[in-house]
Amino acid sequence: MPMDLIDYSQASDRVRAVYDDIKATRNLPDVNNFWKSLAHHPESLERTWTSVKQVMSPGALDPLTKELIYYAVSVSNNCRYCMASHSASAVAKGADKEMLMEVLAVVGMANETNRLANGYDVPVDPAFVDAW
Amino acid sequence: MPMDLIDYSQASDRVRAVYDDIKATRNLPDVNNFWKSLAHHPESLERTWTSVKQVMSPGALDPLTKELIYYAVSVSNNCRYCMASHSASAVAKGADKEMLMEVLAVVGMANETNRLANGYDVPVDPAFVDAW
Amino acid sequence: MPMDLIDYSQASDRVRAVYDDIKATRNLPDVNNFWKSLAHHPESLERTWTSVKQVMSPGALDPLTKELIYYAVSVSNNCRYCMASHSASAVAKGADKEMLMEVLAVVGMANETNRLANGYDVPVDPAFVDAW
Amino acid sequence: MPMDLIDYSQASDRVRAVYDDIKATRNLPDVNNFWKSLAHHPESLERTWTSVKQVMSPGALDPLTKELIYYAVSVSNNCRYCMASHSASAVAKGADKEMLMEVLAVVGMANETNRLANGYDVPVDPAFVDAW
Amino acid sequence: MPMDLIDYSQASDRVRAVYDDIKATRNLPDVNNFWKSLAHHPESLERTWTSVKQVMSPGALDPLTKELIYYAVSVSNNCRYCMASHSASAVAKGADKEMLMEVLAVVGMANETNRLANGYDVPVDPAFVDAW
Amino acid sequence: MPMDLIDYSQASDRVRAVYDDIKATRNLPDVNNFWKSLAHHPESLERTWTSVKQVMSPGALDPLTKELIYYAVSVSNNCRYCMASHSASAVAKGADKEMLMEVLAVVGMANETNRLANGYDVPVDPAFVDAW
Repeated sequence: MPMDLIDYSQASDRVRAVYDDIKATRNLPDVNNFWKSLAHHPESLERTWTSVKQVMSPGALDPLTKELIYYAVSVSNNCRYCMASHSASAVAKGADKEMLMEVLAVVGMANETNRLANGYDVPVDPAFVDAW
Repeated sequence: MPMDLIDYSQASDRVRAVYDDIKATRNLPDVNNFWKSLAHHPESLERTWTSVKQVMSPGALDPLTKELIYYAVSVSNNCRYCMASHSASAVAKGADKEMLMEVLAVVGMANETNRLANGYDVPVDPAFVDAW
Repeated sequence: MPMDLIDYSQASDRVRAVYDDIKATRNLPDVNNFWKSLAHHPESLERTWTSVKQVMSPGALDPLTKELIYYAVSVSNNCRYCMASHSASAVAKGADKEMLMEVLAVVGMANETNRLANGYDVPVDPAFVDAW
Repeated sequence: MPMDLIDYSQASDRVRAVYDDIKATRNLPDVNNFWKSLAHHPESLERTWTSVKQVMSPGALDPLTKELIYYAVSVSNNCRYCMASHSASAVAKGADKEMLMEVLAVVGMANETNRLANGYDVPVDPAFVDAW
Repeated sequence: MPMDLIDYSQASDRVRAVYDDIKATRNLPDVNNFWKSLAHHPESLERTWTSVKQVMSPGALDPLTKELIYYAVSVSNNCRYCMASHSASAVAKGADKEMLMEVLAVVGMANETNRLANGYDVPVDPAFVDAW
Repeated sequence: MPMDLIDYSQASDRVRAVYDDIKATRNLPDVNNFWKSLAHHPESLERTWTSVKQVMSPGALDPLTKELIYYAVSVSNNCRYCMASHSASAVAKGADKEMLMEVLAVVGMANETNRLANGYDVPVDPAFVDAW
């Protein structure tokens, strides 16, 4: 606590295969500390990477929008590592400081009105029920 | 609990002024239940509307992206009313069902990796520190 | 789910002893549903009542202030039952609707600035370190 | 991460106007780090200060009670900066160590019973529905 | 909201393949509503099932222990559906009512001491640092 | 913040009585920092120790299973001290690193599906209602 990081040179073949895929997919010279920690549990490393790769690939939403949402949830949950890594990823995908600070403003406001809506016990408007 | 809703016809002039601004700003025939509940505390109604209007107006991020982030935080916090209202707002601003389901996938994944990062106590990569 | 409620007439002697103490301490004709549910696990019923009674008794803080804090945390955590019971308790101890709505305003604001402080990663001011 | 602090001497006129109002309202020689961080986004600085000033001013609840509630929510949400700043503010408004430790006891107890009430899925007592 | 459930008879081949695997793996005549909702997003259905199947299979921990942990986290997060489904799964794997009520007691206590530890800002004991 | 730790040599008789019981019950040469912090509020120290001792004693669940659940909730809530102390306690009761990493995998997965279940607003299956 914290666990030591498993670098490529120390990693098993199973772990190296994941590292190689991360580096190739993201075009990076090395994987970040999150993966080097998860490598203590190769099963979690493989599963988490497979899931993150799928979820964050372009779809109906573009990669930057997904990254901003990931960052927003991480701020709301107060995950310090995740805030650092996902804001850096967002910048790498085109976000600037002004955009990140607007994300923070929305996260703050949502956390406020979430509690107001629950506290006032607001009934759902009928118009919202079949909106999508 | 829930509090009764204050309709326009019952509202004070102070409350009606806010309702009028909401309807004009959003081009809607009526305000939704959140505002009709908050109207029990006119000070909170005015302040919250002023803040939401400012935060959600276009800036470095477009209105749809902001709405998707608002929805994402509301899902993560399990605010049922907020999930309903902000997904409906997102649809009104151009989101479709596929986009909302991708938001849910990102929210789920972020909540998972937030706990993994904390549980493994991953140290922040030096490269993230000055990323923005 | 929900579990059936254990009324006094069905309760064991062990459970009745707790119910009797709750009714005597709070001067109420019957215990509320929280205790009638917990009665399925007499050990939890006894321990929780003993703890709540101790924590909520007058000390450096008066009972109403403690009740408002209890309500505030319950709103922030979105516990629907707890919001209902602790707002009712606050009213029984002298709170009015205006006070409860101010509590909601503080809870909303705290949830907003909690995320802003974390998101901006604000360093603690030296003056705060030894404030108490 | 953390963002550098914007001191008065470096601040724009727009930011200085907020700093001046904070210092005058609170009768302090300088603003604390929260505001010096938010100053990176002047719009958030202005909006947040306006909201906090309004919410925390005396109303149906006195300023110390509001501050204790703010502190309680911040502890429950585990916002380290907010715990430090709002406990210091509470002390400045008359709280002592014994009062703060009673707040912590209530916060702990509320977090426990919030989960018990949800886990046992306790139905809301009819008497609570129209309590306020 | 809620989304309509996609039954086997309406499902695409892609969705049916997942349903078939769930039914075979768990030896059930039908899948539960969680999967019938996720089926609106086949990619999430496949990924989530693959992950849940892997995580919940026997390893260093037996399936019942894993299910109790899953239930505990769901209670702590107040996910009503998840509490219902994972307590039912725990019962199917051998849990009884007494065990589930002890889980609730631990969840409540953990939520209390989590806040006390944060509020008192307890420094980590050196002995804990390299405990595993 | 953090509060200074109250060692046995400085402790009042009331506090020493609790310390003695903790050491005897757990067969340890000293109490950990959590108790040395809580000792600032002897009432909270006594009550919390009494509750933890009761909740964590063997019952329908064995002590290790309870400890893993305690750890799981602490990870999910991001209580750094609690993660450290309860993983150390779990190790002392027989857990190994592989088991703790499987706990983390379950905690992560539960946090993901909790949000998916809420976001998709999945209706509770009738079969779950009376499962226990």
